[in-house]
Amino acid sequence: MGDTVVIIGGDAAGMSAASKAKRENEALDVIVFEKGEWVSYAACGMPYFLKGEIDELEDLVQVTPEMFREKRDIDLRTGHEVTEIHPERDTVTVEHDGGTFEQSYDHLLIGTGASAVIPPFDGLDLDGVFTLQSMDNAGEINEYLDSTSVESAAIIGGGYIGVEMAEALAAHDIDITLFEMLPHILSPFGETVGKVVAEHIQEQGVTVHLETAVDGFRGDDSVEAVVADGTEQAIDLAIVGVGVSPNVGLARDARITVGETGAISTDEYGRTNIENIYAAGDCAEATHVVTGEPAHVPLALTANRAGRAIGQTIAGNPQRVGTIAGTAIVKAFDYGAARTGILDEERARTAGFDPVSVTIDSHSRAHYYPGGDELTVTLVADSNSQRVLGGSLVGTEGVKRIDTVATALGAEMTVAELMEQDLAYAPPFSPVWDPILTAAKVLNGKI
Amino acid sequence: MGDTVVIIGGDAAGMSAASKAKRENEALDVIVFEKGEWVSYAACGMPYFLKGEIDELEDLVQVTPEMFREKRDIDLRTGHEVTEIHPERDTVTVEHDGGTFEQSYDHLLIGTGASAVIPPFDGLDLDGVFTLQSMDNAGEINEYLDSTSVESAAIIGGGYIGVEMAEALAAHDIDITLFEMLPHILSPFGETVGKVVAEHIQEQGVTVHLETAVDGFRGDDSVEAVVADGTEQAIDLAIVGVGVSPNVGLARDARITVGETGAISTDEYGRTNIENIYAAGDCAEATHVVTGEPAHVPLALTANRAGRAIGQTIAGNPQRVGTIAGTAIVKAFDYGAARTGILDEERARTAGFDPVSVTIDSHSRAHYYPGGDELTVTLVADSNSQRVLGGSLVGTEGVKRIDTVATALGAEMTVAELMEQDLAYAPPFSPVWDPILTAAKVLNGKI
Repeated sequence: MGDTVVIIGGDAAGMSAASKAKRENEALDVIVFEKGEWVSYAACGMPYFLKGEIDELEDLVQVTPEMFREKRDIDLRTGHEVTEIHPERDTVTVEHDGGTFEQSYDHLLIGTGASAVIPPFDGLDLDGVFTLQSMDNAGEINEYLDSTSVESAAIIGGGYIGVEMAEALAAHDIDITLFEMLPHILSPFGETVGKVVAEHIQEQGVTVHLETAVDGFRGDDSVEAVVADGTEQAIDLAIVGVGVSPNVGLARDARITVGETGAISTDEYGRTNIENIYAAGDCAEATHVVTGEPAHVPLALTANRAGRAIGQTIAGNPQRVGTIAGTAIVKAFDYGAARTGILDEERARTAGFDPVSVTIDSHSRAHYYPGGDELTVTLVADSNSQRVLGGSLVGTEGVKRIDTVATALGAEMTVAELMEQDLAYAPPFSPVWDPILTAAKVLNGKI
Repeated sequence: MGDTVVIIGGDAAGMSAASKAKRENEALDVIVFEKGEWVSYAACGMPYFLKGEIDELEDLVQVTPEMFREKRDIDLRTGHEVTEIHPERDTVTVEHDGGTFEQSYDHLLIGTGASAVIPPFDGLDLDGVFTLQSMDNAGEINEYLDSTSVESAAIIGGGYIGVEMAEALAAHDIDITLFEMLPHILSPFGETVGKVVAEHIQEQGVTVHLETAVDGFRGDDSVEAVVADGTEQAIDLAIVGVGVSPNVGLARDARITVGETGAISTDEYGRTNIENIYAAGDCAEATHVVTGEPAHVPLALTANRAGRAIGQTIAGNPQRVGTIAGTAIVKAFDYGAARTGILDEERARTAGFDPVSVTIDSHSRAHYYPGGDELTVTLVADSNSQRVLGGSLVGTEGVKRIDTVATALGAEMTVAELMEQDLAYAPPFSPVWDPILTAAKVLNGKI
């Protein structure tokens, strides 16, 4: 008989762990409790489903429940909600179909994810006011778009979901107003990216209100207006996307340590403060490669990678979950924006660095080659150690180059070292000096 | 009075050095002798000029001679050929307008470039038989295309120039036959890339003959046929692109050391065996980041970077020329191909490694996101040290990802370390696991 592995949550972290654990050690009994019906889905694809570029919500499912059960021999139980963890007797309490039962485990993984932050807005329960955190949310918004004549919408929050939903709703010929409390949209991407993208989405017809606090919504049954800074604007739909918050209630109740970021503390193997309990994905902290400190960056790759590593560790072959650099990329109409590492100067100073940065305008291809476009690169380094701390890119093509900066962060390269990398050049793909190298050259001269 | 810097050759290495030297120390007298008329041009853009995507050959000139002379205060002398170097008295002999003179220097940079390899073919002097190494060559081919009714062409050599010229000539509705002596085209990119690209260019109507030796050309004044493996095929145009050979005659005559690669030996500052004589660009060796050995990889970035570093060193602020990884990228019709490091297993063994490799098919974007395409990644590592040795990519989009592998080589990462990099994911840009990460995962499991 193999050990019993219990996993709470059937999305990226949970199903990656379940699959890897079984692949490494088929004697393991792997039970996954998922409170909803959807498992292993690409949440990041939801805006493109709502845009109409992906036919069925089911297309976002990477592996079906049947596949997990039949091909991978994983005991996947949807509609099962874990309501308590009992570390003292290695069991969890599970609610299903109105009843409860207790399930014992040898190893437990908490992969409870994150929930949309719900601000204290008036009228949040009106029809037509949505968040976009779950597949059910996506289904509901889609139904609303199909069944209601939506002519104008408010998007609250200028993060990923905000800009992606602006693109999605614009494809339905909806007038969009985006409200952002901060001075810039996409604030984790830095000021330069925020400005360029805001300008672009405004050219696409989206009205952007910066530094504007939303009070709430007004309407009878359905939303009729958004109220912001005391003034009302008529709308038929609202998407609230002001961030996510890790689901740590279960862990906290079981006296599992939650870190300063608000997510579950883990060690380099994804272990919590309790020996046989792991946490991964949007509910857990990860170690930032630049600061070495715990960070909460709820993104898909982090969840997949940590889940997979923990599955392997539980199977008896310890694998570190790895560090994160906070690398992210987002499409906003015709533009792409990408970021990695530490861009915010204050955050860099808090982490003990003396940041210096440059922003340069380069080109995605050789200047004479048709079809290229401007590419703006920001690079930040520590003036003492000369180490690269972070970077961003914004432009209509070529922003996946952020991976080069992310890899330089992973290797703790100095600016001079980054500048010396032998990056690929041919006129259809890059200037001779790739924009990343040009930024490194300029920053190196300034440092 | 500043020192006198003499530079032989006014292309990438020479003009980068001249510009940087003056920028760092304006007291320097910088004299550049260029035997031709073109300086600082993007040779890599020539196929796209011939394709008709770039209007004027002049568009490939990055900085004009006037700019160098007037804005940068560089004494640039075109039509001046250096015929001898006299290290014993720190002078060069220069031929100009039928006369010669001697010019003294404090620092000398040899940037004589490379020439097209001319195989021992019959009929090389027929009209319509060209190489494509210089801007003059490009002008001549363009004139020939304009003035002659070219219906069919032979391309000899399936390297960069061969595949780029296939694309360029196909745009003129010319029937193309490409001859390659080796079992695969684009041989430095490895077998997988060679096969995928050959298949693609054949789908585009190009006939590809592999392992086929060309004997030469036949015709009266103009080329009428190509003779290969004893059989004749009628053609109106031939492009011979079988490689380049470094121009080291001047250096050799002056007893400057030429390495085993056939290019000029240099140290980490680009210095030859003579203290005040440097060499850079297509005529010089560089240090390979994987093997640590001298290599000859005549590419634009290497020349620009080494020239710039030497300019800085001469100006009194020593800067290493950096290593190379042999990173390269090429467009072939709708496909892109890229490579870096050591792909060839025999070469890896010679360098003391025990190579193991994987090739995987992944996708350029999330599988459900429209517009993505297959992306094939090869990754090679040393099974002893686990270090990444090289990689390649081929597909219709996303091959610039090779920079991630190149940066991993620069950092001497292991496969496990590469696998742990936090690369950017969003559905329009990548699968959750970037194809590079997937290749690293698979290779890590095999190693």
